[in-house]
Amino acid sequence: MSPTSFDLFSKEYKAIIETEIIEYVKKLEAPAVVKEAMAYSLEAGGKRIRPLLVFAVLGAFGKNLRMGIPAAAAIEMIHTYSLIHDDLPAMDDDDLRRGKPTNHKVFGEAVAVLAGDALLTYSFQLISGMNDPEVTAQMKLDLVSEIAKSAGAEGMVGGQVADMEGEDKQLTLRELEYIHEHKTGKLLTASVLSGAILSGANGEQLQHLRNFGYHLGLAFQIRDDILDIEGSVELIGKPVGSDEGNHKSTYPSLLSLQGAKEKLEQHIGLAHASLAKTALETDLLNELTDLIATRNH
Amino acid sequence: MSPTSFDLFSKEYKAIIETEIIEYVKKLEAPAVVKEAMAYSLEAGGKRIRPLLVFAVLGAFGKNLRMGIPAAAAIEMIHTYSLIHDDLPAMDDDDLRRGKPTNHKVFGEAVAVLAGDALLTYSFQLISGMNDPEVTAQMKLDLVSEIAKSAGAEGMVGGQVADMEGEDKQLTLRELEYIHEHKTGKLLTASVLSGAILSGANGEQLQHLRNFGYHLGLAFQIRDDILDIEGSVELIGKPVGSDEGNHKSTYPSLLSLQGAKEKLEQHIGLAHASLAKTALETDLLNELTDLIATRNH
Repeated sequence: MSPTSFDLFSKEYKAIIETEIIEYVKKLEAPAVVKEAMAYSLEAGGKRIRPLLVFAVLGAFGKNLRMGIPAAAAIEMIHTYSLIHDDLPAMDDDDLRRGKPTNHKVFGEAVAVLAGDALLTYSFQLISGMNDPEVTAQMKLDLVSEIAKSAGAEGMVGGQVADMEGEDKQLTLRELEYIHEHKTGKLLTASVLSGAILSGANGEQLQHLRNFGYHLGLAFQIRDDILDIEGSVELIGKPVGSDEGNHKSTYPSLLSLQGAKEKLEQHIGLAHASLAKTALETDLLNELTDLIATRNH
Repeated sequence: MSPTSFDLFSKEYKAIIETEIIEYVKKLEAPAVVKEAMAYSLEAGGKRIRPLLVFAVLGAFGKNLRMGIPAAAAIEMIHTYSLIHDDLPAMDDDDLRRGKPTNHKVFGEAVAVLAGDALLTYSFQLISGMNDPEVTAQMKLDLVSEIAKSAGAEGMVGGQVADMEGEDKQLTLRELEYIHEHKTGKLLTASVLSGAILSGANGEQLQHLRNFGYHLGLAFQIRDDILDIEGSVELIGKPVGSDEGNHKSTYPSLLSLQGAKEKLEQHIGLAHASLAKTALETDLLNELTDLIATRNH
């Protein structure tokens, strides 16, 4: 199989963001240990789906993709801080993340808490400091607003709280959707909308892209639940079936494995349909969507 | 003694910010428990020095003080999140804060971590959402930039990390100043500068006010160190002499009690001198400064 333009895009921009995000941390005038802890988790790998979404949306609007670097880095920092805090002993108490010791295992809990705080805070500093002449003050403010709302109590943090409260409880599908829409979906949507804000999208395009992010987020999470049953430990980096062991409500536990797969297909279909309505050049976004539906880790 | 205009100002605006900050939390569409945890620590009292600084600077420029409410609330939220995270078992492991059980004692560690994260994130949402017609997009961006820089790895978080690394070590005065300038001074300075940004201060005024914040921050912290020796447990809410018990480097331990008092006087003098250079109406700011120098809790 020859590499598609999507393969080239994702490889190139994954490399770009992984370089740039560490450069941002290096620039900080701060105690070495907190910079090391921040860089450690930023370097721990991952699919970089959020940065790729920012770039792919800029591509759909025919914009210069590099304009999205600070926003993409900011969102990846927020995603990374959330993983550091989630892994803490008081939260999920995980020793490994992507096969590497978690941040608090290496740097201690106190530094891990503070490295997370620093990543979250730095994300807003990066956005306010964007100096591309095409990016207006209003665009930067719209980014701050969208990203803060998606990351905070009304978004990711709210989803995380609801997730904790729902442990060991039988959830309804509606409750499970709330959790996943917020815990995962909101920041994915913010990634999509950040690309759109920087592209000067109109209100209608923003709405279609918001719908796209919603369906993409739920698809992402349903795929995660399915992988927890079907995946292999080498590929997903945590014991398969760990949700089941925890008596955690999941899409397969509420809908059966087959029902979850159908739900996944539905959301993938609606994600593509939302993209189609934008009338933009959405090839990269369509491929990213399919990748999420079929990924095996 | 009849109430001065400062007493009236501080009483009125302390009440205003304490009401408004809870209103902001009530507005959040988020799980009840995270809103309760956020409000619990915001309601735990304190001197509200940071909000009062925002308002007093607006007053110095003859501006409408209420224009500063969102910025004042945002900074108080950041201060409050830092206290919640500092109190965690992995950090200072404090059970009491201002005589009340700490956040994690009431809500558990996981919710305390997340409530802190949510307060930090919400602060940037509040600033980006300011809708006073006098506040331009550029002013809001300058607020985000100044506050993020002051709160993050280059500011408060950096100071906290350096403080932890310095425990049980004999620090130099320079190292101790770094810690206090960053851990306490930066966010106090950001409060001062937030009022100035909203007032459309010029570059020279911003520089004098930045110097004012620097000296005020160090004065605040030296007073804290002195109170730790001379204060009474009822007034400061923690065991007197706790720094000494920890073998923590303090101004009195490095300079002697008398030397620390002289250093305090120096910084207070330089704070007043910086204010004088602004040629603004700085009565309230001068009184706030003296209050910090003489406070007994």
